[in-house]
Amino acid sequence: MSGFVGLITDFGDSVYDGIVESVIKYVDPSINVIRIDNEVPHFSVLAGSYITYSSYRWLPPGSVIMIVVDPGVGTSRRAVVIRTNNYYFVAPDNGVAYEAAAEDGIREAYAINYSRVRSLAGVKAFNSWPLSYTFHGRDVFAPAAALIAKGVPPSQFATPIPAGSLVSLRLRYSFRSEGVTRTRVVYIDKFGNVALGLTTREYRLPRGRLVVNVKGTQHLFTTGRTFADVRPGDAIAYINSFGFVELAINQGSAASKLNVNVGDEVSLIP
Amino acid sequence: MSGFVGLITDFGDSVYDGIVESVIKYVDPSINVIRIDNEVPHFSVLAGSYITYSSYRWLPPGSVIMIVVDPGVGTSRRAVVIRTNNYYFVAPDNGVAYEAAAEDGIREAYAINYSRVRSLAGVKAFNSWPLSYTFHGRDVFAPAAALIAKGVPPSQFATPIPAGSLVSLRLRYSFRSEGVTRTRVVYIDKFGNVALGLTTREYRLPRGRLVVNVKGTQHLFTTGRTFADVRPGDAIAYINSFGFVELAINQGSAASKLNVNVGDEVSLIP
Amino acid sequence: MSGFVGLITDFGDSVYDGIVESVIKYVDPSINVIRIDNEVPHFSVLAGSYITYSSYRWLPPGSVIMIVVDPGVGTSRRAVVIRTNNYYFVAPDNGVAYEAAAEDGIREAYAINYSRVRSLAGVKAFNSWPLSYTFHGRDVFAPAAALIAKGVPPSQFATPIPAGSLVSLRLRYSFRSEGVTRTRVVYIDKFGNVALGLTTREYRLPRGRLVVNVKGTQHLFTTGRTFADVRPGDAIAYINSFGFVELAINQGSAASKLNVNVGDEVSLIP
Repeated sequence: MSGFVGLITDFGDSVYDGIVESVIKYVDPSINVIRIDNEVPHFSVLAGSYITYSSYRWLPPGSVIMIVVDPGVGTSRRAVVIRTNNYYFVAPDNGVAYEAAAEDGIREAYAINYSRVRSLAGVKAFNSWPLSYTFHGRDVFAPAAALIAKGVPPSQFATPIPAGSLVSLRLRYSFRSEGVTRTRVVYIDKFGNVALGLTTREYRLPRGRLVVNVKGTQHLFTTGRTFADVRPGDAIAYINSFGFVELAINQGSAASKLNVNVGDEVSLIP
Repeated sequence: MSGFVGLITDFGDSVYDGIVESVIKYVDPSINVIRIDNEVPHFSVLAGSYITYSSYRWLPPGSVIMIVVDPGVGTSRRAVVIRTNNYYFVAPDNGVAYEAAAEDGIREAYAINYSRVRSLAGVKAFNSWPLSYTFHGRDVFAPAAALIAKGVPPSQFATPIPAGSLVSLRLRYSFRSEGVTRTRVVYIDKFGNVALGLTTREYRLPRGRLVVNVKGTQHLFTTGRTFADVRPGDAIAYINSFGFVELAINQGSAASKLNVNVGDEVSLIP
Repeated sequence: MSGFVGLITDFGDSVYDGIVESVIKYVDPSINVIRIDNEVPHFSVLAGSYITYSSYRWLPPGSVIMIVVDPGVGTSRRAVVIRTNNYYFVAPDNGVAYEAAAEDGIREAYAINYSRVRSLAGVKAFNSWPLSYTFHGRDVFAPAAALIAKGVPPSQFATPIPAGSLVSLRLRYSFRSEGVTRTRVVYIDKFGNVALGLTTREYRLPRGRLVVNVKGTQHLFTTGRTFADVRPGDAIAYINSFGFVELAINQGSAASKLNVNVGDEVSLIP
């Protein structure tokens, strides 16, 4: 049996994920495709990094994680393969896979050769269909991920590059000074819950309460285990199920109340 | 080959279903996962029961149906396995699986032991990752469903409980008195069509017309085969493709017109 | 190993695709189901044809493409199987599969016999469950697609019909007169980008600029490679990743600006 490909994209509900899965199965019908998430906010590399970091460890060891959150598609940004201790990451070289790969331990990195990956894939339509400007999920990342899951060494369609040349993006990002912890918003879910780039590994949630400073305004949050620990309308900070500090309003939107977007800085004052 | 897991959740479009599928495949790569529905209205146990009842019979016999509609997550509610004549149900003990399980014939019931199911699963991240307060889909239900689909007896990670101790929730729910049938709303689809807790087994749709009484107001519905049987804007009652009585407005929203939500009582007067 | 079924529907996020996949796996657990798209605009046969034509070539040869965009469900429209040089199409006979099938080369066509396909399928619930008026995806198309993917000849559950009797619908549709090319809108994506029924096979995008005439109003579009080639708010025409001419406003909605819907005629003046 061939391996697994886990798919993370910002395609939304559309035909794009379906075509990507089709190409992967065309290369090798025995590959197992898991659609992890297609609702990463469009072109948000930081949010894509959060989803990748929060999900990769639940895939079987040896899996290929293919990530398409790619605002630079059509420019000269590289498409890369990163081999880590337990996984492969196939993604644009914009940092979206970096935090997950670094945690698992980077072993090797490669830049994908577009024409070689397409000719090795054996997908007939690639012969008559030019490389598109905007759909590298189908034209570059899917054949690369499929070939790896099939057992083809990346060196056959990609060039080794120094791991140090990879674009790095820190998801877990914090500075502490005089008791104040500065970090940033890394994800906002559909309920408006706000995840910060801060996990239990860097930070211990204070007992009782927490002051959150956003753009000069201070907001008081109760600390607890889950949003159900406070009454409707009340603000609470807790560790979410991915291990990140999250700010929420029970039955409300913390993102609206704080007026924040992904990438915005916030400070936590115990 | 191992068996099937059919997945029903209220997670919506998000990373949660993808992580659940990843954990199941981690336990046993040969398990076949079918994502049945992730759009059950959030925390609506009654709507989840309707979706479960309407879909379970179409899965191959022997399948595991895993349902995560779980407003009580993090409380002391039990997580249960119900073995029926042809299927297994893995769900919170809030009644969401009850009507389907009862129809198929309950044989045995078990309460899942959280630490045992996690240690048996063989998923490495469970060793370093605490049981979460809110994501038991990943931490409890996925490993339980996967172990059953792999062929592990539930008794190895769960304790037998009396079937009579299961929380029961009647989906098909009606009282008849002096010709009036009282029932309740069990599902509202995205078009605003209103399904009632009444099937062709309990009820025969009258020919011609039907009066629907909701909160003291009476509404006249033509009866027919499908909403296309009346003109745009007109009200019609028919048997939907799952065998339930459904109220609709052709090209309109019956839910808005009747001002009803899931759980509301309605009376049908022939 | 059995074959592939690629699934294209207008069901949206719901339980319907999940039940269709369940029925297919019930017929033969080894069939590989790929959910290509469930977001075809409701009942839009032209948009369904565009999605089918743009995706079928990426499926492994021998795959069955099952399409449920079926405004005529419950009427006397036929349900058909079309065998082409490399694929099978299973769909209502409303033209939704026609352009793709014709391009691949139609070899044979069949009209599905409802009761025969249901009895051959071996799905227990079909015995006690009547043919529904509205869910032929579950009751007719899924068992037909599954039987073909399993290797059963269509002649066992369907009657040969002349290929010339199939409802035809031209997706690539254009007339040229005095330098003006008339075509129509075939798809509008969630960003409001407008795809026309015109590919690089019939049309060469002029360099520099293009005048688009819609309902008597003329709009000027820059021509380029992708919407990122113009500034936010500017209008651009390019060849999209499926090979079709597409009209877009960078960070805006061309559909709103042009006030067009799928099916509307437009004229291109170089």
